[in-house]
Amino acid sequence: MNHEVKAILEAVQSGGMSVEEALLKIRTAPYEDIGFAKVDLHRQVRQGVAEVIYGAGKTSEQIDGIADAMKKNGQETILITRLSGEAAKQLGQKHALAYHADARIGIIGEMPEPSGLGSIVVATGGTSDIPVAEEAALTAEVLGNKVIRLYDVGVAGIHRLFAHKEELMQASVIIALAGMEGALASVIGGLVDCPVIAVPTSVGYGASFGGLSALLSMLNSCASGVSVVNIDNGFGAGYLANMINHMEEVK
Amino acid sequence: MNHEVKAILEAVQSGGMSVEEALLKIRTAPYEDIGFAKVDLHRQVRQGVAEVIYGAGKTSEQIDGIADAMKKNGQETILITRLSGEAAKQLGQKHALAYHADARIGIIGEMPEPSGLGSIVVATGGTSDIPVAEEAALTAEVLGNKVIRLYDVGVAGIHRLFAHKEELMQASVIIALAGMEGALASVIGGLVDCPVIAVPTSVGYGASFGGLSALLSMLNSCASGVSVVNIDNGFGAGYLANMINHMEEVK
Amino acid sequence: MNHEVKAILEAVQSGGMSVEEALLKIRTAPYEDIGFAKVDLHRQVRQGVAEVIYGAGKTSEQIDGIADAMKKNGQETILITRLSGEAAKQLGQKHALAYHADARIGIIGEMPEPSGLGSIVVATGGTSDIPVAEEAALTAEVLGNKVIRLYDVGVAGIHRLFAHKEELMQASVIIALAGMEGALASVIGGLVDCPVIAVPTSVGYGASFGGLSALLSMLNSCASGVSVVNIDNGFGAGYLANMINHMEEVK
Amino acid sequence: MNHEVKAILEAVQSGGMSVEEALLKIRTAPYEDIGFAKVDLHRQVRQGVAEVIYGAGKTSEQIDGIADAMKKNGQETILITRLSGEAAKQLGQKHALAYHADARIGIIGEMPEPSGLGSIVVATGGTSDIPVAEEAALTAEVLGNKVIRLYDVGVAGIHRLFAHKEELMQASVIIALAGMEGALASVIGGLVDCPVIAVPTSVGYGASFGGLSALLSMLNSCASGVSVVNIDNGFGAGYLANMINHMEEVK
Amino acid sequence: MNHEVKAILEAVQSGGMSVEEALLKIRTAPYEDIGFAKVDLHRQVRQGVAEVIYGAGKTSEQIDGIADAMKKNGQETILITRLSGEAAKQLGQKHALAYHADARIGIIGEMPEPSGLGSIVVATGGTSDIPVAEEAALTAEVLGNKVIRLYDVGVAGIHRLFAHKEELMQASVIIALAGMEGALASVIGGLVDCPVIAVPTSVGYGASFGGLSALLSMLNSCASGVSVVNIDNGFGAGYLANMINHMEEVK
Amino acid sequence: MNHEVKAILEAVQSGGMSVEEALLKIRTAPYEDIGFAKVDLHRQVRQGVAEVIYGAGKTSEQIDGIADAMKKNGQETILITRLSGEAAKQLGQKHALAYHADARIGIIGEMPEPSGLGSIVVATGGTSDIPVAEEAALTAEVLGNKVIRLYDVGVAGIHRLFAHKEELMQASVIIALAGMEGALASVIGGLVDCPVIAVPTSVGYGASFGGLSALLSMLNSCASGVSVVNIDNGFGAGYLANMINHMEEVK
Amino acid sequence: MNHEVKAILEAVQSGGMSVEEALLKIRTAPYEDIGFAKVDLHRQVRQGVAEVIYGAGKTSEQIDGIADAMKKNGQETILITRLSGEAAKQLGQKHALAYHADARIGIIGEMPEPSGLGSIVVATGGTSDIPVAEEAALTAEVLGNKVIRLYDVGVAGIHRLFAHKEELMQASVIIALAGMEGALASVIGGLVDCPVIAVPTSVGYGASFGGLSALLSMLNSCASGVSVVNIDNGFGAGYLANMINHMEEVK
Amino acid sequence: MNHEVKAILEAVQSGGMSVEEALLKIRTAPYEDIGFAKVDLHRQVRQGVAEVIYGAGKTSEQIDGIADAMKKNGQETILITRLSGEAAKQLGQKHALAYHADARIGIIGEMPEPSGLGSIVVATGGTSDIPVAEEAALTAEVLGNKVIRLYDVGVAGIHRLFAHKEELMQASVIIALAGMEGALASVIGGLVDCPVIAVPTSVGYGASFGGLSALLSMLNSCASGVSVVNIDNGFGAGYLANMINHMEEVK
Repeated sequence: MNHEVKAILEAVQSGGMSVEEALLKIRTAPYEDIGFAKVDLHRQVRQGVAEVIYGAGKTSEQIDGIADAMKKNGQETILITRLSGEAAKQLGQKHALAYHADARIGIIGEMPEPSGLGSIVVATGGTSDIPVAEEAALTAEVLGNKVIRLYDVGVAGIHRLFAHKEELMQASVIIALAGMEGALASVIGGLVDCPVIAVPTSVGYGASFGGLSALLSMLNSCASGVSVVNIDNGFGAGYLANMINHMEEVK
Repeated sequence: MNHEVKAILEAVQSGGMSVEEALLKIRTAPYEDIGFAKVDLHRQVRQGVAEVIYGAGKTSEQIDGIADAMKKNGQETILITRLSGEAAKQLGQKHALAYHADARIGIIGEMPEPSGLGSIVVATGGTSDIPVAEEAALTAEVLGNKVIRLYDVGVAGIHRLFAHKEELMQASVIIALAGMEGALASVIGGLVDCPVIAVPTSVGYGASFGGLSALLSMLNSCASGVSVVNIDNGFGAGYLANMINHMEEVK
Repeated sequence: MNHEVKAILEAVQSGGMSVEEALLKIRTAPYEDIGFAKVDLHRQVRQGVAEVIYGAGKTSEQIDGIADAMKKNGQETILITRLSGEAAKQLGQKHALAYHADARIGIIGEMPEPSGLGSIVVATGGTSDIPVAEEAALTAEVLGNKVIRLYDVGVAGIHRLFAHKEELMQASVIIALAGMEGALASVIGGLVDCPVIAVPTSVGYGASFGGLSALLSMLNSCASGVSVVNIDNGFGAGYLANMINHMEEVK
Repeated sequence: MNHEVKAILEAVQSGGMSVEEALLKIRTAPYEDIGFAKVDLHRQVRQGVAEVIYGAGKTSEQIDGIADAMKKNGQETILITRLSGEAAKQLGQKHALAYHADARIGIIGEMPEPSGLGSIVVATGGTSDIPVAEEAALTAEVLGNKVIRLYDVGVAGIHRLFAHKEELMQASVIIALAGMEGALASVIGGLVDCPVIAVPTSVGYGASFGGLSALLSMLNSCASGVSVVNIDNGFGAGYLANMINHMEEVK
Repeated sequence: MNHEVKAILEAVQSGGMSVEEALLKIRTAPYEDIGFAKVDLHRQVRQGVAEVIYGAGKTSEQIDGIADAMKKNGQETILITRLSGEAAKQLGQKHALAYHADARIGIIGEMPEPSGLGSIVVATGGTSDIPVAEEAALTAEVLGNKVIRLYDVGVAGIHRLFAHKEELMQASVIIALAGMEGALASVIGGLVDCPVIAVPTSVGYGASFGGLSALLSMLNSCASGVSVVNIDNGFGAGYLANMINHMEEVK
Repeated sequence: MNHEVKAILEAVQSGGMSVEEALLKIRTAPYEDIGFAKVDLHRQVRQGVAEVIYGAGKTSEQIDGIADAMKKNGQETILITRLSGEAAKQLGQKHALAYHADARIGIIGEMPEPSGLGSIVVATGGTSDIPVAEEAALTAEVLGNKVIRLYDVGVAGIHRLFAHKEELMQASVIIALAGMEGALASVIGGLVDCPVIAVPTSVGYGASFGGLSALLSMLNSCASGVSVVNIDNGFGAGYLANMINHMEEVK
Repeated sequence: MNHEVKAILEAVQSGGMSVEEALLKIRTAPYEDIGFAKVDLHRQVRQGVAEVIYGAGKTSEQIDGIADAMKKNGQETILITRLSGEAAKQLGQKHALAYHADARIGIIGEMPEPSGLGSIVVATGGTSDIPVAEEAALTAEVLGNKVIRLYDVGVAGIHRLFAHKEELMQASVIIALAGMEGALASVIGGLVDCPVIAVPTSVGYGASFGGLSALLSMLNSCASGVSVVNIDNGFGAGYLANMINHMEEVK
Repeated sequence: MNHEVKAILEAVQSGGMSVEEALLKIRTAPYEDIGFAKVDLHRQVRQGVAEVIYGAGKTSEQIDGIADAMKKNGQETILITRLSGEAAKQLGQKHALAYHADARIGIIGEMPEPSGLGSIVVATGGTSDIPVAEEAALTAEVLGNKVIRLYDVGVAGIHRLFAHKEELMQASVIIALAGMEGALASVIGGLVDCPVIAVPTSVGYGASFGGLSALLSMLNSCASGVSVVNIDNGFGAGYLANMINHMEEVK
């Protein structure tokens, strides 16, 4: 692909091709011979807003190298997920890194101004779900969304949820995280009229079986508009919420 | 046991009973040997109110025979669970039988006057849970309880549940039945301050796995006061609810 | 809620309404009491476009009654899911019913003009997934979406999928249905940059375990932007896709 | 709710409260809005007897703060569950704390006088079940119940259970805890005529699968009157047992 | 093997057998080649007492042929397991066949006189377990054992079990069959001092998961001397019980 | 029971014992009350040969105390299972303890002379199964059996098994231990004509799922005479093998 | 692709392109822009030998149409899998169809001469595995392989397997099918030095869980050279065996 | 076997060997007794190329001893799997050991020249699968195969896979490793026309359930030519790939 895209860029640079024409060429012409617009998911998310580094299994040196390259490419904000405290410490000595230990998320650079159709509500059943919730919330924020956090509003004390009806009703997308019985997603899904992304968490003990109980509960939700991501997959939920919150007409 | 064995011992002491006779008496009366009050669960429930015949796997002739024997013993009301329509038809030709086809329950004789500490609420998530709910409700009624039915009040339309707060708050015990995600038990458990008996039902499809999803969800309920019986076990829930609704001081 | 309660309060203040009357009003209008916008999911979807009747476990008489009531309320298009051929036959004698036997879906009235941000692609791995796919596609169409069907484009012959890159790239939302190994959702999720709703189907044999294999595969998708609904839940996917395809700015 | 809202309405009617103020009152007092008696489960159990702090995931400082607030409200006895030894040590320096290391339970203040309909028997299959049993027993005691412990009376030596028939027969409620094959609940359920709360424990190895075997066994109990809580959920069992042991007529 | 091969070798040595003939003899007599005593399990059980035909998947003609061959070999008693009523009807027209419909077992010829170290007790938890129990009992009887049936002695009415302590204590081997919670095997295993063969049955509903609950329960039995066979494997239990009841000193 | 109760009754009859005293005697001697031969499984196995202490979860002090008590009662050989190296060290300072670290078994006193009907073969599929195998073998030896060890004779190199046909054919009972695919039990069960006790081990990785694969494989053995105990339950297998190897005529 | 390939073919027809050149073009040039040689798996297997129609879910008319088209293309032998007896009947009226009812396989045209590196052995544990085995064997034969059937050679009578050592040792590939405990694959894998394709079958009952037991057993095989396909996937095994038996040097 | 036994028989015939000696020879050479070619799998793989030591659970002393013995037998290259870094360190002091820490593989001696029909491609979905992939790749290399590594070509960025079409199309065998959704094997299987060995890895979190998700996905692959080995079984895949890559005509 490199050669083709390089040629297009050079044509644009030399004035031989208009930006619109080049844009069209890239979108309708293949990435190499496959032809899709989306190239490398984890590295190039919504160019201009932020990029993501999946930190798990990478050394701080590797992360540092990738971050440097991104910066050189003009990227101002970088999200690093599954970042250990150890690696964060080392990265922080060189980069302006904000580290969120609970969520194991590091952010280099400025947070972007929120954009999108509305706000994303991130709601959790309990306080133990907060680390995964923060992974979702920070992901959404870094990608340019206004996030409203409603933590510890589980169904065992449902009035706490109802106290926030304003926020729920005005949400564009809602991320509902819960472990144990995972009922929060169904209750919220039954109340609101926007997409609800359910995230089962591995919080619990005994018959929660590492999140299986919440997962099954959420998949069986009787409320329409609810879909489910993997157990503890806060990043995936935040990413999808951003996608939905930035929906626009397809030309 | 004490009284009986003591009587035997005294008879032996006084010479009124031989050692061999005493030995035989103790050996041939096995459960007195053990000394527990509860003798034969499925046949002698709260004597004077109603008796139960577990109809599954019994021919109508067998059920007829048992019912006749019960009647001879002065039993006026008899509950027959898991009764097929076929068997009900034949039984109905001889006994004054009220047959509830959905719940597969037959009742011979008069329903007793409700007694107990309060009313038992039987709530379901959807309309498909009603057969199991009726098994629970009729069991409780036959055993002498006032039952309030709140059907189709699942969490996907939670206002329908809240419209019945009066009944919920004044319940003595609540039986919450739901299939699919089983969230109803948790939501009710979080609202009320009385025992909640959760009954997972096999209603659903796909990842409900025959009631497994609802079962796990209910076992993981974050709300205290909730306990669970087997999938589709309406009778067990009704029986236990009756027990709790008739609690009295132990002398 | 605010407006209604405010009106009631003002009426009380002005003496136009007694305290008892006001109390009753609040109590008997339960969902306003709660204050959420979404009232009764399965009956009132996107008012003015279409309404939905969940046909499973309902007699044709019951469905007829509901449809009549809806029509009286001015509803022109009605979607009936999980409708048996038997019931369809009887309904068809009275209503202008288009029945889709495979998808077990009946539609009364005219299909609405497609609206929304773009088109919804419904893709299946094989031909056996088509019934569930049609449930999704027809649901989306009835709710006012342009649907593009890409059937039998599973990963075992991935060129068939790639032959449709135009449609995939221009989709607003994609519904990916597959049984067996369920890889279709991941492959599509890795290609496109729009939300992908994955629907595991119970198609398969042996270690597909009734859709469990596809379900787990889809939940573990490495591609971002993918979320999952219950096994064989075509309606849920179509409903959610419609929601996303009609996203608009929240005032 | 009635009383509060009625008072507000009357105030509005009399001119003593403005419409805006009334609206705010209703909105900011969310649970009264809902109208249920039970407010905040984990913090306010049976006011006047004891309160509960769920210690898991809280720092000793947080627990200290909550305990202080409770004390200020006049609470004399406070139960802290899932309290680590570390946190107990620090709390003990300030509060009169009795710490039960096995059960990970801390109790601040005096134990209340036992009340209720009768005694609660806590029975275990083996000695390894004792930590969970103590969580149940101490919970019940702190909430004001007389508890009788029958430990290590599993079915592999059933005479040990039968040696305690007096206690079993006079129990108001029985909590039966067992790992491995979990048969204890069924055997007790077959002997007594009071509610039996079954607690599967994660004790065991191999095919006990972390308590799954005991859980399934208990759910399938052929004895009526048996219901089940989550694996290792001693607190839940003790809390429910207290509820049942304090049943009284609902006015 | 030794004797046969030795004889062959000696024949070769003495010139009475050619090398080729010897080679062929060894090769065409495969199991002597291996040298084990047990040759063809399902056809030649304890020669002189009875032989077994596994009837599942065989036509009545096939069974007839095998039975004829066995009779010609002087076999007087033949056990046919998993025999359908249809096939039994046809076989009965030619052979003196006693057919036990519940257990799906047919027996041709006379029952042997019981032998062995003692009696085999076959105990079931409920009446629904009887078909599998009869498969076990009849198998044991046909192989020459005295069988004592204790049916419907499950743990929910444990006095019924204790009424038979004489039989239990004098048993040589006990086969304990139960579905649902499967506790019977543990209770019996805790009472007696002889081998207990546990047979989980698929009797039950809901969380019995087709016998899985009973299976796990029995595998986790805390009582020593208990081992388990496959769900519903009455034949296997009867066969093993016969083996143990006929143990004798190995020379 | 008969003898003891008879003696008590005679004493009452003769005036040598008061009714109260007799009542107390019966009540405080609970197991005679029940009348079974087997009293306290884990402590009094085959009196005169050896006793067993289940070491798991006991401190070395507790074990020491129990061992002392046993010795005082004249017990010469004591088997301690699941004994940690730490506890063994401390016990060894006072008792003549032979500690088998792999099998986590300690033996105090002399090994008894082997008795029984024949020898017990303990066979393993691989070398990693040896710790569990040794638990079985040492248990059997301590209870007075001749044990022949055939280790690492798994089906992937079946000639290694066949090299030991003499031992297999002359065995009285065979214990077959295997992890992974667990085929050893079936192969041995197909070769020999004596009871085979199958012990699945947790040896393996991946889809062995902690012994589940071997467990299922063994339960499904097509060979008759095979029964199964819990995963890694070497003690249970050794105990049962001893029982079978010491079968004798029941008077 | 059609256009491109058509152009190539026309060039060949007109003499403008050599066959070798055309062959190279197709193989090294993409199917459209993907570039792989393998186009449509189920329809075009090893051109010149046979083609496959997957019959499940197709009407006899559809199958007829596909077969006609194949014949027109010069295909002489056509394999139809999962063909119902009903459809076979109708197809047979028009085509020279050999129908194998057990294996649900129909073959139109002549069987090809066997080719390949050696013979493929198809071995089953029992007689009930034969339908799946025949699916494998016929698939392999139709694709041009010599197949040797060794049925009912399961490990419960392992001498039956050993009687066929010649065939096993000379096999090029072995397909081992078994239900229940699935040990056959491991035993064969331990004996021979060629690839073994293991096919778990759903034959069995109880804890065989529809083939899960055999599946896990085969996956855990300690013998190297063993790999596994889906439960009951006879076609897949036959297809893969053919592939391996026709391995040749890659230029 | 034939030759050896024939030789023995001839020696007996000629008087050159006594009957006893002949008998002993046959008995003590057990595997010749069975007559299969493959003797001791883990120690003698393709003699002349390399031998394998399974390092798990062996001390470095044990491994050293085996390696010494192999060397004495003239073996030049030795593969040690599952070798801990600790053991590698000690072995390296004496042997010329190349240790691959990630794959936990040690190799003593020279790598052989690649032979076989073509190259083996080892492809992984992500970078976390590399350790298992290296186990497969190194195994194949040590056994004399050319290996091409395609790492991190998972389906979430499928263009990375397609960039390597040349290598894929020219492969003799392909090993596809993936965790999470495991779709890689299906996609590759749909593209190429050679055997694909699928290796599920335990890489992932949440609903990947330790590799179960990938395992099921791979077993359900719709692409023919795909078979599966155990989770994380890199060695097994490499060994089987070598077998297939060295297929030759069976004489």
